[in-house]
Amino acid sequence: MLNFESDYTEGAHPKILDKLIKTNMEKLSGYGEDIYTKNAIEKIKKLIKNPSAEVGFLCGGTQTNLIVIKNVLKPFEGVISADMGHINTHEAGAIEATGHKVLSLNSHNGKIDPKELENYLSNFYNDPNHSHAVYPGTVYISHPTECGTLYTKTELENIHNTCKNYNIPLYLDGARLGYGLMSDSTDVTLEDIAKYTDIFYIGGTKVGALIGEALIFTNKKVDHLVTRIKQSGGLLAKGRLLGIQFDTLFTDNLYFEISKHAIQMANLLKKGLLEKGFKLYIDSPTNQQFVIIEKDRYEKSKQFIKSCYWCNYDDNSVVIRLVTSWATKEEDIAELLNTI
Amino acid sequence: MLNFESDYTEGAHPKILDKLIKTNMEKLSGYGEDIYTKNAIEKIKKLIKNPSAEVGFLCGGTQTNLIVIKNVLKPFEGVISADMGHINTHEAGAIEATGHKVLSLNSHNGKIDPKELENYLSNFYNDPNHSHAVYPGTVYISHPTECGTLYTKTELENIHNTCKNYNIPLYLDGARLGYGLMSDSTDVTLEDIAKYTDIFYIGGTKVGALIGEALIFTNKKVDHLVTRIKQSGGLLAKGRLLGIQFDTLFTDNLYFEISKHAIQMANLLKKGLLEKGFKLYIDSPTNQQFVIIEKDRYEKSKQFIKSCYWCNYDDNSVVIRLVTSWATKEEDIAELLNTI
Amino acid sequence: MLNFESDYTEGAHPKILDKLIKTNMEKLSGYGEDIYTKNAIEKIKKLIKNPSAEVGFLCGGTQTNLIVIKNVLKPFEGVISADMGHINTHEAGAIEATGHKVLSLNSHNGKIDPKELENYLSNFYNDPNHSHAVYPGTVYISHPTECGTLYTKTELENIHNTCKNYNIPLYLDGARLGYGLMSDSTDVTLEDIAKYTDIFYIGGTKVGALIGEALIFTNKKVDHLVTRIKQSGGLLAKGRLLGIQFDTLFTDNLYFEISKHAIQMANLLKKGLLEKGFKLYIDSPTNQQFVIIEKDRYEKSKQFIKSCYWCNYDDNSVVIRLVTSWATKEEDIAELLNTI
Amino acid sequence: MLNFESDYTEGAHPKILDKLIKTNMEKLSGYGEDIYTKNAIEKIKKLIKNPSAEVGFLCGGTQTNLIVIKNVLKPFEGVISADMGHINTHEAGAIEATGHKVLSLNSHNGKIDPKELENYLSNFYNDPNHSHAVYPGTVYISHPTECGTLYTKTELENIHNTCKNYNIPLYLDGARLGYGLMSDSTDVTLEDIAKYTDIFYIGGTKVGALIGEALIFTNKKVDHLVTRIKQSGGLLAKGRLLGIQFDTLFTDNLYFEISKHAIQMANLLKKGLLEKGFKLYIDSPTNQQFVIIEKDRYEKSKQFIKSCYWCNYDDNSVVIRLVTSWATKEEDIAELLNTI
Repeated sequence: MLNFESDYTEGAHPKILDKLIKTNMEKLSGYGEDIYTKNAIEKIKKLIKNPSAEVGFLCGGTQTNLIVIKNVLKPFEGVISADMGHINTHEAGAIEATGHKVLSLNSHNGKIDPKELENYLSNFYNDPNHSHAVYPGTVYISHPTECGTLYTKTELENIHNTCKNYNIPLYLDGARLGYGLMSDSTDVTLEDIAKYTDIFYIGGTKVGALIGEALIFTNKKVDHLVTRIKQSGGLLAKGRLLGIQFDTLFTDNLYFEISKHAIQMANLLKKGLLEKGFKLYIDSPTNQQFVIIEKDRYEKSKQFIKSCYWCNYDDNSVVIRLVTSWATKEEDIAELLNTI
Repeated sequence: MLNFESDYTEGAHPKILDKLIKTNMEKLSGYGEDIYTKNAIEKIKKLIKNPSAEVGFLCGGTQTNLIVIKNVLKPFEGVISADMGHINTHEAGAIEATGHKVLSLNSHNGKIDPKELENYLSNFYNDPNHSHAVYPGTVYISHPTECGTLYTKTELENIHNTCKNYNIPLYLDGARLGYGLMSDSTDVTLEDIAKYTDIFYIGGTKVGALIGEALIFTNKKVDHLVTRIKQSGGLLAKGRLLGIQFDTLFTDNLYFEISKHAIQMANLLKKGLLEKGFKLYIDSPTNQQFVIIEKDRYEKSKQFIKSCYWCNYDDNSVVIRLVTSWATKEEDIAELLNTI
Repeated sequence: MLNFESDYTEGAHPKILDKLIKTNMEKLSGYGEDIYTKNAIEKIKKLIKNPSAEVGFLCGGTQTNLIVIKNVLKPFEGVISADMGHINTHEAGAIEATGHKVLSLNSHNGKIDPKELENYLSNFYNDPNHSHAVYPGTVYISHPTECGTLYTKTELENIHNTCKNYNIPLYLDGARLGYGLMSDSTDVTLEDIAKYTDIFYIGGTKVGALIGEALIFTNKKVDHLVTRIKQSGGLLAKGRLLGIQFDTLFTDNLYFEISKHAIQMANLLKKGLLEKGFKLYIDSPTNQQFVIIEKDRYEKSKQFIKSCYWCNYDDNSVVIRLVTSWATKEEDIAELLNTI
Repeated sequence: MLNFESDYTEGAHPKILDKLIKTNMEKLSGYGEDIYTKNAIEKIKKLIKNPSAEVGFLCGGTQTNLIVIKNVLKPFEGVISADMGHINTHEAGAIEATGHKVLSLNSHNGKIDPKELENYLSNFYNDPNHSHAVYPGTVYISHPTECGTLYTKTELENIHNTCKNYNIPLYLDGARLGYGLMSDSTDVTLEDIAKYTDIFYIGGTKVGALIGEALIFTNKKVDHLVTRIKQSGGLLAKGRLLGIQFDTLFTDNLYFEISKHAIQMANLLKKGLLEKGFKLYIDSPTNQQFVIIEKDRYEKSKQFIKSCYWCNYDDNSVVIRLVTSWATKEEDIAELLNTI
């Protein structure tokens, strides 16, 4: 059975497992006070060329999002997000559970439009009744977005400038950041991300780790980060589990290499699908591909291929999502293209 | 350097690592929908002889505590706990962050007294102004407690009966449950725990797992558990990480065997310390030992032995905690006794 | 200076003040345990012909909304509202501050469409990923809406039926309920409101009271209402202040008489404006009228008439809101029509 | 029937009612933008000699406490309070509902001990594990306390200094502040309160107002106070109701005159009770008196005197609370002393 359901169908990249095995019986301090966590932090700071950044490691995207947003907002502030943003749709109300509103903007293939953001903010402050409304306190974007698209450097810069003008931090959800950075058609580097956002995270779970996200505060800090993480149930006694993984991911370029592989597989897949006459629902330059497929064919495909139902397209067709990852093999792509 | 700081200084028990390696490239569904998670659930239900129990796997103790307590309480209710209870002291206000008060009772070596619990509840309802106070909505106990002590079966039964009379669920924090069940001096079995409590968790992180706690609802259920876990940031994309570990821990009695080993090591340690004339601060029957030691000697010991400072005893002495685990070796105990 | 800014520009209806004066030195129990509060409760139950309803008195609309919604939702549920709904726009995030998401539907002149509600709910449960989303746990409607419009009896019934099918309570915000019930063009009675909703409130602040809203649970109850109100800071030591006012408002039909007067004034105003060639932005059958006016004329009018800026209409015109109330005098309408 | 149950058994002081009547038909802006609210603010700033103070008016003590504490604390901070403090006992968990722990200190007749506060804070920061605990973020005291006692100026100054050393604001709950300031045995003035605390409130509800508390930020400010109040449901459409009352209370010294009267009545009561051989449970210098009375006598008294049961004293006696207010008459005291 082929499985293109997601980029988290396997365990960890073998190099990560190796490192976990090798270090397993070392006696290390808990709660992130171990040497591997420290190494991982140093490697990340070096990569983003920001020695004063603050880095913490967390277990998953929703946890990271809620910890960041809860802790950067004042009680009367909310977070701006594309209406399709993960925090607004698929996190079970995690942000609101911390007491804050998600203020949604129209999404354009998953992205917010820099001009619409600017308008939202200027309209807010021009509204004579805005003291009865939720103040915009931070902006959330995902990159790649939930539908695989990417911001251009110019878009990022414009959003950054608007945020700066309004003095609100920009937070970037990088659950699949590696796949974004290694896309053929991006002009955005990791350094750009670190420069144009105030807080962001580098996703591990979907890019080769067993579990883990690296949260980075560059231009905006919060004090007592450990306590804030502890309060939300995100502090691991065996912090090594996260430290060792990110130390490995950022050794010898592993994170970028495996992301690149996934992109190459996605490109093969896309090319093959187009050649077979399929139409894409969204033109995604990353590892998630969205294909329009007739309902019949989709139903039949289910016995050979695991994919992810995305939405209805029209009366006869649906959209499915096919995802590649560090673990995808070229022969699986070939077989998929044969089978579908 | 000897290290008796905690029971989470190593990675995972080798059998767990083996299983993670063997299953690593299997393509599995996410979010706990994999076969290993299902197996682990079945094994736990069998062990506690409760086929209708509901089981979920989480990452850590604080996360588990906050998810349980948030979801069993009504908005105007609080949780009763010993004042030394972990939720009242070392979880950075995680319970209050979900909107609920911790109602503290005096702790007696970490335990609440069943009679004092009964009095608290009866006084509450007899107070003519209780509608202006926080209603007791659940009772939290830890077993072993934060200072290594254990409830007797009679105590558990009495607390259970009181909770039943007042129709409030009893929740047991079993972060170190294995070490409690394997203690030489306990009359409490896992079945007793499942019978006398309404909700409890079996700790993995401190008993051989890399990460993970098994949360079990026996006599009290909550609907939509997955969504509730998701909302608090506790749902792992790679749920297999938890499922595989608990599947392994509950295969061939591993969980109990390794807990027993830790108890044997703790007994050796205790005997050795007493023979050397040390006094114990608390007479703990589990894997945490609390030793009174002169300040000078403690300072000197630091270059050879990592231990955990607990509290001041008097002007000349402090209390330190020494902890054994599944990974403790007999020769380490011998060396510790020689060195100290 | 004419003032048509709102329906809360004066103090209280004189009969209410009279009653406050007459009862002022009576020594009464606090927290709503006084005879006037009891009388008011009985009168309301009689009016809605529901002897088992539960009634509480609160200080304002936002307070009432947050107390209801917080207390009827489970932690993983949200409240459905028109996107223009007061809770979604002008309550400073009060609902989210209690931990719950507002799930917005398109608004049609302030109203939700029964069919769109039905679709939303059926789509939600048909979405295979809905366990990662916020469950709809209650529906919020306002009547009259924020722009003065009213649901028809058929619409209310349809919304009621949908809610019943999905087993979620319907909550109606009646901040201006009197003005809705006395509108010339409504077929909805107070008994209908009580029958088709599960919880609603009868607004006092905007209908003649100094302060106060009467919250009524008909088909859905919550236990320990006093404690829940206390927790949110809504319980008055001098509960008499609310009880006396509602006792007066529901004596000799006062609430309905003064609402009727406001409607008559609004009708005069509307007729006059149309005769003068003004266009209405929304055709409101209640005490709020929305008039399109050229910017120049609006600016000039400001020295004679206080009104409420609503929104821009086009480059040359804006929409202003003119509001009548129990206190509006016929000569003020005449003067307004002359002046504008 | 005599009634000494509380200081909120009557409506408002007649001068307040008069002012409400006189201003009733004035058309005023809502939400505290009226002239009376502005006057009241100016009068308070003058009284405390702090022209840059920020003042807001709220409906009740619990509401005020929760708005202050929620808005001055960071997410990982809690509020220190005497264990008998109102926020820790009789506010139904209002503080925890905003996400924050109440950190309790022993109370000494309702007061915290400045030295114990200092110790608590220094122990907290000396604890090597304090990053897993709730940080103390503000100190709450009540003056008079819940049992009628008062801080001395030296005590206030010491608490102030400790707070300053640890850079945490001091908040004073003045629900009965007038009775404290007019006590015969206090050396604390209103100016002292404003100087030694960072935030405090002057209670109206229990000192002659129908409803209302004046919240004052002196040395600590929060931005966007109106929005914060709105979010918690504390913003009144008819803000005039609060403004007019405080404008009246601070005209011609009314607030202090009526407080003084209550103290004189309390002194008469106390003297009379002592002469009759009663013993006092607490030696209260304010308007709440706590009397030890045999159970039999107490039961009999109930048909003539309404009082407030406080607690059991011993097997034969209970403690009752008798309260005087601005409305207490000398003949009522005489009759009480005759009857009891």
